[in-house]
Amino acid sequence: MATQGAGRVTIADIAREAGVSLPTVSRVLNGRSDVSPATRRRVEDLLARHGYRRRTSGAAGRAGLIDLVFNDLDSPWAVEILRGVEKVAHAEGFGAVVSAVHHRAASAREWLAALRSRNSDGAILVTSDLVPQIHGELRGLGIPTVIIDPAGVPTYDIPTIGATNWAGGRSAVEHLIGLGHRRIGMIAGPQTLLCSRARLDGYRSALEGAGIALDERLVRQGDFSHESGFEQGTALLDLAEPPTAVFASGDQMALGVYEAARRHELRVPADLSVVGFDDLPQARWSPPPLTTVRQPLPEMGDAATRTLLQLVRGETPGVVRIELATQLVIRDSTAPR
Amino acid sequence: MATQGAGRVTIADIAREAGVSLPTVSRVLNGRSDVSPATRRRVEDLLARHGYRRRTSGAAGRAGLIDLVFNDLDSPWAVEILRGVEKVAHAEGFGAVVSAVHHRAASAREWLAALRSRNSDGAILVTSDLVPQIHGELRGLGIPTVIIDPAGVPTYDIPTIGATNWAGGRSAVEHLIGLGHRRIGMIAGPQTLLCSRARLDGYRSALEGAGIALDERLVRQGDFSHESGFEQGTALLDLAEPPTAVFASGDQMALGVYEAARRHELRVPADLSVVGFDDLPQARWSPPPLTTVRQPLPEMGDAATRTLLQLVRGETPGVVRIELATQLVIRDSTAPR
Repeated sequence: MATQGAGRVTIADIAREAGVSLPTVSRVLNGRSDVSPATRRRVEDLLARHGYRRRTSGAAGRAGLIDLVFNDLDSPWAVEILRGVEKVAHAEGFGAVVSAVHHRAASAREWLAALRSRNSDGAILVTSDLVPQIHGELRGLGIPTVIIDPAGVPTYDIPTIGATNWAGGRSAVEHLIGLGHRRIGMIAGPQTLLCSRARLDGYRSALEGAGIALDERLVRQGDFSHESGFEQGTALLDLAEPPTAVFASGDQMALGVYEAARRHELRVPADLSVVGFDDLPQARWSPPPLTTVRQPLPEMGDAATRTLLQLVRGETPGVVRIELATQLVIRDSTAPR
Repeated sequence: MATQGAGRVTIADIAREAGVSLPTVSRVLNGRSDVSPATRRRVEDLLARHGYRRRTSGAAGRAGLIDLVFNDLDSPWAVEILRGVEKVAHAEGFGAVVSAVHHRAASAREWLAALRSRNSDGAILVTSDLVPQIHGELRGLGIPTVIIDPAGVPTYDIPTIGATNWAGGRSAVEHLIGLGHRRIGMIAGPQTLLCSRARLDGYRSALEGAGIALDERLVRQGDFSHESGFEQGTALLDLAEPPTAVFASGDQMALGVYEAARRHELRVPADLSVVGFDDLPQARWSPPPLTTVRQPLPEMGDAATRTLLQLVRGETPGVVRIELATQLVIRDSTAPR
């Protein structure tokens, strides 16, 4: 078995000797640009002189580990992202440790302690609300970090993988307009999330492009849950002049609209066209199969892991924010008006 | 940082000194009964004399790790089980490393190498076809192992967590009989899996209990996929005398029956009652919400992790096979005939 740690230089040692802060050393290690050339050279010289090695698989005499942190594991999102992460990690000989922090600061602290203790090589965060807290700590520890950001949180100086939410929203509504729909309802996600605002703006932009005036009564507010899709879908169908099509900002809300239509004895798509967003597996399995905007969640997991492993190996990733393209997938829930 | 391994006694050392095989030492460590009292005493004495400590969190100076291995991460099952495992592991300060081996022996070998290298404390297997291969290796390494067994594989001498498949199948069909149905179709899962056979026997038993003769034309064979549910559901509805209700041995197949009904312009439940098995999240979100037999997947993950951590701590779990109860969840897809 490997002997680990004995006499090995730490980034704290390097920071002390270079007369800089610990975060500065980790900035150099992570290949970031916000370090002066002189400081970078001094730190790199010390790292080389002391033979500093990252705690990677080779260095520690064990397989590498990366940590993947979600808020919750009850969203069908989670397993889609995990699939992409596991595939790349496995191929590179890394294990993916999965945790859920449930939006709780205490849980995030416990996770950070375990991460430190298990000597993880890097972390992928799929949690937006705890990023400010976690970010500073991980930087202090010199642990490379990547954010997967289906929600569209403001950018930190950490590589971030997202999707093209605005373009996706626009393509959904253009599809409905192309089928002859003019009264198109929208069930938006929480407006605190940038992804929700981007999808709503895509809706507005498509209407504007077709010369259709925006009717604010057709825009409703959900929270991505099936329940909210059902409630807001019911409200839309109860209007004096109901829409002939609905774009829901998430698949679960779109399936809630299905249920609202069923209770109104309306058939999808003959009486009401519905488009979702995400392309979760159940979109294919719903009667009728749902037309939706595919968010490439496994590919986002894949890209995040590749970027993270570059950082772990001390390489500099090319870009700091990647937006992977969404794609309209046309199935059976949309029909000509 | 902790120094690890230097001069530490291994189970191979103990086996040599005791004059027994390595598997025998691991049997003693795992508290199994198939070791003679004399051998057990000799091994336990040596373990105590050398101060042998398991590679647990305390011993290795790092947080513990457990490995959770699936065949694939594209089944919605996976994340349900993971939720239960993560919750218990997190609470006990262990990280859960998630892997997929895709039914491939080569992939399982890579995973075993990584498991050894990352020094995992234990493993939970949710893959049935590779158990024979993996089982021997893990035993040789002295790594405690638990099987989660939604499929009902034959038992190895490893603690196994399953569900009451026969009772669940029976409750589904009794519910339909109670609603007045007499022609009840069944879409079974692959008959190579014991869980499928148990659910089918539950169907037969409920019919027999109600004095309804079995009509073999009403029993169809699927493979748990949505597609097979659609195909076999279509075949049932195309019969000269179609069933008024269908019990599908999995939720995804039940949703395939929904789609078959939709194409036949039949309404669920007014024209056709449908019952599934699993209670995956999408069962709730399907129009109409699906009546199904709840398989307690998170609880199975929870029980497996608790049992595994007992083994890791050197305790002996009380029982070797646990079957958690299934439960009929009545929603909107079943109605009186």
